[in-house]
Amino acid sequence: MNSSWDRAPCPVEAAPFADRPEGRISRAQAWAQAATGIGNVTVQHAHFDQPLALRSGGVVPAYDLVYETYGTLNAAKSNAVLVCHALSGSHHVAGTYADDLNNLGWWDNLVGPGKPLDTDKFFVVGVNNLGGCHGSTGPKTVNRQTGKPWGAEFPIVTVIDWVHSQVRLTDLLGIDSWAAVMGGSLGGMQALRWSITYPQRVRHALVIAAAPRLTAQNIAFNDVARQAILTDPEFHDGHYYDFGVVPRRGLRLARMLGHITYLSDDSMAAKFGRELRGERLNFDYDVEFQIESYLRYQGDRFATYFDANTYLLMTKALDYFDPARECDGDLSATMARALAKFLVVSFTTDWRFSPARSREIVTALLDARKDVTYAEIASPHGHDSFLMEYAQYHAVMRAYFDNIRV
Amino acid sequence: MNSSWDRAPCPVEAAPFADRPEGRISRAQAWAQAATGIGNVTVQHAHFDQPLALRSGGVVPAYDLVYETYGTLNAAKSNAVLVCHALSGSHHVAGTYADDLNNLGWWDNLVGPGKPLDTDKFFVVGVNNLGGCHGSTGPKTVNRQTGKPWGAEFPIVTVIDWVHSQVRLTDLLGIDSWAAVMGGSLGGMQALRWSITYPQRVRHALVIAAAPRLTAQNIAFNDVARQAILTDPEFHDGHYYDFGVVPRRGLRLARMLGHITYLSDDSMAAKFGRELRGERLNFDYDVEFQIESYLRYQGDRFATYFDANTYLLMTKALDYFDPARECDGDLSATMARALAKFLVVSFTTDWRFSPARSREIVTALLDARKDVTYAEIASPHGHDSFLMEYAQYHAVMRAYFDNIRV
Repeated sequence: MNSSWDRAPCPVEAAPFADRPEGRISRAQAWAQAATGIGNVTVQHAHFDQPLALRSGGVVPAYDLVYETYGTLNAAKSNAVLVCHALSGSHHVAGTYADDLNNLGWWDNLVGPGKPLDTDKFFVVGVNNLGGCHGSTGPKTVNRQTGKPWGAEFPIVTVIDWVHSQVRLTDLLGIDSWAAVMGGSLGGMQALRWSITYPQRVRHALVIAAAPRLTAQNIAFNDVARQAILTDPEFHDGHYYDFGVVPRRGLRLARMLGHITYLSDDSMAAKFGRELRGERLNFDYDVEFQIESYLRYQGDRFATYFDANTYLLMTKALDYFDPARECDGDLSATMARALAKFLVVSFTTDWRFSPARSREIVTALLDARKDVTYAEIASPHGHDSFLMEYAQYHAVMRAYFDNIRV
Repeated sequence: MNSSWDRAPCPVEAAPFADRPEGRISRAQAWAQAATGIGNVTVQHAHFDQPLALRSGGVVPAYDLVYETYGTLNAAKSNAVLVCHALSGSHHVAGTYADDLNNLGWWDNLVGPGKPLDTDKFFVVGVNNLGGCHGSTGPKTVNRQTGKPWGAEFPIVTVIDWVHSQVRLTDLLGIDSWAAVMGGSLGGMQALRWSITYPQRVRHALVIAAAPRLTAQNIAFNDVARQAILTDPEFHDGHYYDFGVVPRRGLRLARMLGHITYLSDDSMAAKFGRELRGERLNFDYDVEFQIESYLRYQGDRFATYFDANTYLLMTKALDYFDPARECDGDLSATMARALAKFLVVSFTTDWRFSPARSREIVTALLDARKDVTYAEIASPHGHDSFLMEYAQYHAVMRAYFDNIRV
């Protein structure tokens, strides 16, 4: 559709966009990175053969989680940090792979030796969520009971289910309590959930660019994305694997729409404005403006590697997240159970989860007399900001981690 | 998909939503309306057999426009007001039809005897735009040269093309100059264009909830909507009429997405919040939250009556609108040509075309030393506000029209 992108990528492509494992870099950059960063990493696998009961009432009979670790677990096992990923992220948080030097982890600017989350001090774990499509058990995994991919039979998982599934990995690693659990967006919701459900096992929770629950508008955007996938004729009720197709059109639309909500109006204006793709207007339905070219490219690329059933699951986990519901809507009462200290971070131009949403969390924590640090970072890049390398943002992160005793 | 809506419509359904001819009312309401409002109206047809050269370089060899009139043209023909419609609007601005008493015009709350645009004083004209799907020549009209619907062969029309097409209707009606040309959203853009292109023929331009040009984010939303339609397998390159189908899935998604941008985050929160459709969570992909039910219903209904090719055309007209481009981006220089007086109105929670966008127009008009009145109306309902009956808004409109001499 838009093949000239491959020949002459738009400069903005190089920016570390959003919660997705797409931070590919040039070979030269990879070498520079390997010299100063975390270097090559290895994917690890854990199998859990006890059934996992889910919030929905469903059960996953057994499951695998793939994960990566960076740094060294100390003798006291007190320096471990769990990084939870967002909608389309993965366990590949930092570093590169020996056989794929261009494949840089999605939060590599934050995690590594000498970086704000310093792997010379901390042992960092990245994990692909249950239901994901990067190696952990999910809809595209073969269901051993049927010998076919789970597809639509994979049960809906929620944030609390992820936390329960990750506790078993925590046990496997021999970690009694995490020095910190952290994440951005949906990852931040997992950090919050960890602090409520396993208060003894989290000493610090870092909740970045998140919200205590989705608004009607948030749910509405998610539902349009889901409907794009669900009504794609190639979705086949979620069993598209059996037909040798993927609901590419729907997944592409879902991604295009999501992408608009990751960027701020201002950052889109600054990057693209009304700049034309060609020299003059063509008056047809091909790409006319640069922003169209960019969005279609993002959608096309995403549809080549991400699993549509996983996308559906992840958006539902977002919709269902609402820990205050357990205390009749009183978030402060819910947070009273937590024993962790908190860092909450928001970004001024994030309209997907605005600073006001982070302040709801902070207010609830203060009302519950918890120890909370809050930073509202001035940034032009909307929700995507949590993946960027702003000096003020990284200084806050560095200072917070520096003060964590291990 | 969502048939229980028909049995128990959500109360919000009664609200006069957005720029679309859907303001259907109950029979009882219709009777009450007929008693106090404009009563039954008749659709009129005008045929123009001179070719119309378009901005794109294309030509429409001949065309029909359907229109309605309310009130009486005075002897001096000085009391005529043209109402231009927005993306999915029509010529049916006010009143009902004798054979369809439930079909209330989309701006009926504003137009009628004793209403802010008082038909006891003014002669009001509503017209369906060229390229539309409510009776004027457009993609679903039969092309006399081929004997088949125009479909994708219908050329792309822009705001200036509409104004040129409407000038011929103006001539046909014997109107030298409009007392006012007015519209909301895309309709407001037409009012602005009229004042620039035919300065002698517009005495007042009312530009409501509009913008001088779309931002990258606006274009991005439009492109996702277009891609939903263009990639629907039943679009058939725009010739779906020949196949006896419509790209229902794509049009439905486009409408769902559009709808989110018509409402404010706050108004969605107030109306729907996180209210569940049923009594408890179901953990599946059926409707879970009321907002999903509402959006899917809106999308489903829209896809039954609106033409997908027209939807594409209308969004392109929005994208291309940029009158300042003619003066190297200097809107003030462009507006210098106008002779009209202006009323510009915006709504505080409109994030599709925010008050800041209206202020750009006002600033340009002031710089060009034009006579401009500006009202920024506090309203919770986002872009849809321009169709609502707020006391402050209607008082401004009434006062402005009261002061127009005829």
